[in-house]
Amino acid sequence: MSNIYIFFFLDSCMKYMRDGSVIVARLLKGEEFIESVKSLCEKEDFSSGRVQAIGAVKRAVLGYFDTEEKKYVHFECKGELASCMGNIAKKGDDIVVHVHAVVSDREGTCKGGHIVQAETSATVEVFIDVVPGLKRALDAETGLYLLDL
Amino acid sequence: MSNIYIFFFLDSCMKYMRDGSVIVARLLKGEEFIESVKSLCEKEDFSSGRVQAIGAVKRAVLGYFDTEEKKYVHFECKGELASCMGNIAKKGDDIVVHVHAVVSDREGTCKGGHIVQAETSATVEVFIDVVPGLKRALDAETGLYLLDL
Amino acid sequence: MSNIYIFFFLDSCMKYMRDGSVIVARLLKGEEFIESVKSLCEKEDFSSGRVQAIGAVKRAVLGYFDTEEKKYVHFECKGELASCMGNIAKKGDDIVVHVHAVVSDREGTCKGGHIVQAETSATVEVFIDVVPGLKRALDAETGLYLLDL
Repeated sequence: MSNIYIFFFLDSCMKYMRDGSVIVARLLKGEEFIESVKSLCEKEDFSSGRVQAIGAVKRAVLGYFDTEEKKYVHFECKGELASCMGNIAKKGDDIVVHVHAVVSDREGTCKGGHIVQAETSATVEVFIDVVPGLKRALDAETGLYLLDL
Repeated sequence: MSNIYIFFFLDSCMKYMRDGSVIVARLLKGEEFIESVKSLCEKEDFSSGRVQAIGAVKRAVLGYFDTEEKKYVHFECKGELASCMGNIAKKGDDIVVHVHAVVSDREGTCKGGHIVQAETSATVEVFIDVVPGLKRALDAETGLYLLDL
Repeated sequence: MSNIYIFFFLDSCMKYMRDGSVIVARLLKGEEFIESVKSLCEKEDFSSGRVQAIGAVKRAVLGYFDTEEKKYVHFECKGELASCMGNIAKKGDDIVVHVHAVVSDREGTCKGGHIVQAETSATVEVFIDVVPGLKRALDAETGLYLLDL
């Protein structure tokens, strides 16, 4: 019953700079947001931090968590990445990039939710603060991997 | 003429960690956002900073300030906390948590405004930067307690 | 074919404080957001950083970049500045303040996009992190000045 989304992305080739614990990256046209941030974690050897971004996306899948059915409902949108914020944390050997966004269209109408996937249009400008120690663990009640602090 | 909202919240029992001037907290189901941040100020002995959060809220009261009538109009919403940012400052002996949010529903439709109250659903993940020295003072023209810098 | 917007603003007289690389500013009624941030760059002698703000705007012009026609479409809105984030970078001898916002009205309805101009209503509270080294260069494909990292 769930929709299937097929994306073809560029290999990660975003540009970035680092100044201490702050990383600034620019994603190139076609790069996917979540995978690009994960790729940056590998390149810069960190797995935990805070994320903020603006830019534009030509195709994004956002999610809404249905707390009754304990699953995500997905929908698509595109346009300006009007707001984008969240965090990076370890989940076992994997890295979870948990980011929420507001995407706005030509009339300014907004769609908001959890970023499942988002493909860069003209540009996405990302700020990351490396903050050590964030990890996630399964929460039995919600079925979600929540921050384990 | 103003609406009355009655909330019953859990006592504050959020999980958090601190790394220098950065605090990361996870609010538990049922915890109220504004009171939880205030509680964190007490626990960690600070009264001034910057706030950013994402997550989900099962019931939020947002406000819009009517500059003509010099009062807040309130409305309710719930869903993903798509965006949430603001600041913490002293107001006399009290602490003001001034945060604006965008809350999105199952279709991604967004409601935005000033957070009056917001009850955590599955999770709310909060980043705070402790920045010293912020306080508020009454502004005669607007009737609001504005940042006194 | 493009709309003309005429604004009359106060000379910049915002209040601010600085703590290391963090600047907190409060814009006064009538002050324009982009020009005020640029003015702060001059006063505090920096040209590169990250921006976050909340508050209220009595008139904002937001933009949507049409990637087909390679130009911005503009529209107006006003109300709560529910979300506002972006960055500051050099473009030759000039400074570019690239910020996206979500503005919400009395019912909470949101309009999002790139801030072209935004006039402060009751208050706008701005946090800036000075991050050195950001600059922009013309990107031939999009016709935009993108971050040159």
